[in-house]
Amino acid sequence: MNNDMLIRVTRYYRALNRLRAIGLEKVFAHNLADAAGVSAAVVRKDFSILGFHGQKRGGYDITDLTARIGAILGKGEEQHVIVVGCGRIGKALMHYNGFEQDGIRIVAGFDNDPVVYSDASQPIPVYPLSRLDEVVGALKVNVAIITVPENAATDIYASLLAAGVTGIMNFSPVTLKPQRTADGILPVVHNINIGLELEQIFYELKFPKE
Amino acid sequence: MNNDMLIRVTRYYRALNRLRAIGLEKVFAHNLADAAGVSAAVVRKDFSILGFHGQKRGGYDITDLTARIGAILGKGEEQHVIVVGCGRIGKALMHYNGFEQDGIRIVAGFDNDPVVYSDASQPIPVYPLSRLDEVVGALKVNVAIITVPENAATDIYASLLAAGVTGIMNFSPVTLKPQRTADGILPVVHNINIGLELEQIFYELKFPKE
Repeated sequence: MNNDMLIRVTRYYRALNRLRAIGLEKVFAHNLADAAGVSAAVVRKDFSILGFHGQKRGGYDITDLTARIGAILGKGEEQHVIVVGCGRIGKALMHYNGFEQDGIRIVAGFDNDPVVYSDASQPIPVYPLSRLDEVVGALKVNVAIITVPENAATDIYASLLAAGVTGIMNFSPVTLKPQRTADGILPVVHNINIGLELEQIFYELKFPKE
Repeated sequence: MNNDMLIRVTRYYRALNRLRAIGLEKVFAHNLADAAGVSAAVVRKDFSILGFHGQKRGGYDITDLTARIGAILGKGEEQHVIVVGCGRIGKALMHYNGFEQDGIRIVAGFDNDPVVYSDASQPIPVYPLSRLDEVVGALKVNVAIITVPENAATDIYASLLAAGVTGIMNFSPVTLKPQRTADGILPVVHNINIGLELEQIFYELKFPKE
């Protein structure tokens, strides 16, 4: 499964969970196509590659399809994430309640500021960065969201890798590169640079592709 | 320029601005390569396509290169953005001070909650959504960041298009599709789905590509 297909299949999975939540039992390729922003032909082709076959009439069974795609995506258990850097963006993510329907839970935050990590009003426990190794080991987490300022990002990335966290979503403007760890593991790094995305939008508006 | 090259060139531009800010005058292809997460050969090839030639020794002149790339990216004037949905994530973006170095400024927020749009302590003026058309027209903004809940995103998207905002960065979990407006303009839509990104990270960790 290439990356584009993975993105689509993850979107189908999300759409299926939402449809099931509102009580639907059957779904057509074009419904999933709408939800994933592709054509129905693409959905049918993906499903054919994955070996799913709908009934000629009535569409695909949502429960069955959700289970099959869930198995492919490795779903079933709740997936745990930590947030490193509990400034405004980090706190916003810790309060965000949209992850639950995807089976994702933020289980801890880390920050260097005692005002932050001593604040019992946070919805999720926040620890000082000095306790990263210990807490990551105890919670057995391997995915982190980095929301620290630009100048701290590279050091935090190194600390996370050293602690065994090899899945990174990085919101800092520094581009972090996946480099094989001493244990031979290649980290998975998604850099989300909001300023860069905005610049690209301005550029694409100025020079339309059409 | 294809999309991958645009992303790289935007990254070179950001790196150049940072290098200039710390007083550097010359830069080598491999410095920009490091900053953009590519190889020096890719930087040289991109520059050759764009018609840039460095000196054999001493590298590229940073001021000259910044001006040339800036001209290509349509830089020079400050670029204005609005935020629609001033919950935690919207507010975090309104307080974020990292956009300035990219020449981007958030000029207004919009929210339906009177507690939010009457709060004078916000760093940027927040207006009720009913004033979207009027304020967008007065500020001549054409790019918006959508940070509203899932159930409001589609309506907000339609309102923005109707108001002439055709560049959209969407943080809601709904996938918004670029559909040509009545004026024949194809909107530029970047969907950033944090839950989806996390799911993909978990998937890639579980099934490494290597």
